[in-house]
Amino acid sequence: MKGIFVTFEGPEGAGKTTQIKQVFQYLTDQGFRCLMVREPGGTEIGNRIRQILLDPELSEMEWKTEVLLYASSRAQLVREVIKPHLHQGFVVLCDRYIDSSLAYQGYGAEKSVSEVWKINEWATDGLTPDRTYLLDLPVELGQKRVLNRNAKKDRMELKEKMFHDRVRLGFREIACKENSRYCVIRADQPGEQVFADIIDDLMKWISFRK
Amino acid sequence: MKGIFVTFEGPEGAGKTTQIKQVFQYLTDQGFRCLMVREPGGTEIGNRIRQILLDPELSEMEWKTEVLLYASSRAQLVREVIKPHLHQGFVVLCDRYIDSSLAYQGYGAEKSVSEVWKINEWATDGLTPDRTYLLDLPVELGQKRVLNRNAKKDRMELKEKMFHDRVRLGFREIACKENSRYCVIRADQPGEQVFADIIDDLMKWISFRK
Repeated sequence: MKGIFVTFEGPEGAGKTTQIKQVFQYLTDQGFRCLMVREPGGTEIGNRIRQILLDPELSEMEWKTEVLLYASSRAQLVREVIKPHLHQGFVVLCDRYIDSSLAYQGYGAEKSVSEVWKINEWATDGLTPDRTYLLDLPVELGQKRVLNRNAKKDRMELKEKMFHDRVRLGFREIACKENSRYCVIRADQPGEQVFADIIDDLMKWISFRK
Repeated sequence: MKGIFVTFEGPEGAGKTTQIKQVFQYLTDQGFRCLMVREPGGTEIGNRIRQILLDPELSEMEWKTEVLLYASSRAQLVREVIKPHLHQGFVVLCDRYIDSSLAYQGYGAEKSVSEVWKINEWATDGLTPDRTYLLDLPVELGQKRVLNRNAKKDRMELKEKMFHDRVRLGFREIACKENSRYCVIRADQPGEQVFADIIDDLMKWISFRK
């Protein structure tokens, strides 16, 4: 595949969405053909699945149901959107990917990370990102930012502090194990600095790759 | 588990829903505590997944997405409804189960049956039916009955004749391999005879089991 598949991981409140938009704008200005997608969702079917996953009314969802729903949205996104764009040479920027499932449904939920991995590897035909940015910040800070958004909390955001501690440690463990693909960014810095750190790494990485 | 888990398999138009209702009534009259569930669905979350799966507008659904969505609905149904009722000693009558995924997403779609099986075994914690009735009938007859229902066709029912031939052969192959659990019923007989055949086997099977 000729394109570049870049994912952004991290907790709620880390600023992923804002950063991805800025990176998208920057790369587009630099002449890259660029696509932004988010998970869960990113396709018509995926958005329908997203509504189920993030519905605060559906709190009795079983763990395996949740794992399979995220994987199904991801399967659709990979084959309908991501792979075709990579084949055409696009830079695909994805807001969350498999590592979010490992961090939330594996580490966070204290369930088997390897089972979550196997389901997702199958769902995505093993498609791995070329580069992943972990926007890492203290749990309290992320939570505070989420609360300040003042919006109705979705199901994921309502989970408790210890859960989010495990998610953070999970992300960092994945980043450590997959360090050739990962770049950990301090997301407790001002937004402009976070953006500068991402672009600095990404542009180096792209030129190195050529 | 003290209960009995009975599943009904077969193509659209085989009369599964009618038969299950009659079996439910019969067993209830005989003093059994009995529960009827259907797939996909059977839970609030499952019904939301069902709406996605059977939406005729969503014809661009990828194979793996479909497999994972059926499995997610099933995971929820097994843990939220089926297992708790089996633990309480209920006879659970289920309209379709894993074998439908093997027949449609495996044999019908000409994809790996063993991959579909693995995902579903994981989703259901390996819960296997005690007894399964395959309501078998020629594809043309099933299709004709479906057309006569005159309702808007759902996504599954729109698939073509050859697909349904493969589904039928798939069901029969599963029934052959799993012959200690399966009872194949001729569904091209009058409804009363189909019902009599099912009850005849089921009551023998229950008394043998005691």
